[in-house]
Amino acid sequence: MRKVEHIGIAVKSLSASVPLFEKLLNTSCYKTETVESEAVATAFFQHGETKIELLESTKEDGVIQKFVDKKGEGLHHIAFDVEDIVAEMARLKSEGFVLLNETPKPGADNKLVCFLHPKGTNGVLIELCQERKQTGSKQ
Amino acid sequence: MRKVEHIGIAVKSLSASVPLFEKLLNTSCYKTETVESEAVATAFFQHGETKIELLESTKEDGVIQKFVDKKGEGLHHIAFDVEDIVAEMARLKSEGFVLLNETPKPGADNKLVCFLHPKGTNGVLIELCQERKQTGSKQ
Repeated sequence: MRKVEHIGIAVKSLSASVPLFEKLLNTSCYKTETVESEAVATAFFQHGETKIELLESTKEDGVIQKFVDKKGEGLHHIAFDVEDIVAEMARLKSEGFVLLNETPKPGADNKLVCFLHPKGTNGVLIELCQERKQTGSKQ
Repeated sequence: MRKVEHIGIAVKSLSASVPLFEKLLNTSCYKTETVESEAVATAFFQHGETKIELLESTKEDGVIQKFVDKKGEGLHHIAFDVEDIVAEMARLKSEGFVLLNETPKPGADNKLVCFLHPKGTNGVLIELCQERKQTGSKQ
């Protein structure tokens, strides 16, 4: 793992939280993106090499909605940038960590991602993310 | 605010969590420090420009113990590095954020710190921290 790529924060409403975090962080949101497969709308802020990612659920039964219903708004996950996500997943599995997806899946911000089960990481939801290689296709 | 200086994670036991996070992060804990005034023992890991700070309560009624009792182990706070903590506190106060301490106080890792009330920041406990200037005294 190379750096903290981003910190994910679950919110009820991007329209309320984006202006709040712009005041808090004293910087503008530079990108919003919806990831249909994860049922989240996201908004990004850059701070040094680490991003802040606000997450709003797009579905009533989405993972972010369930999190907010159970725990309220707040810190949701930490994402670490990795060079080779498949190799890092194999390393962590061999160390006894439980992966929530067995193969990398597409995430926001042009990444391939994998989550670790928080029961094995002191309650912290950890995401691994690797920049997707540019290809000639739109995939 | 310049960068995410560290991410604080509340744990029940550093002796259990330090080896776990060494495996997870694939790097060694480089420092442990107890901050008596905050009733916490801390352990630090470096990842790029951001540190991971594990926090164990040293008192039964400490803030970390209360957090763990209420919410379980997990993500506790994000700390942003600032150049001038007094100026940043004034800016945030003028924007309507509520400061948990009115003057900077000593924190771990040779920092002056201030926390913002999480009710005003979507449930996220935010810490501002500024490197303490070197002086001739041990203070």
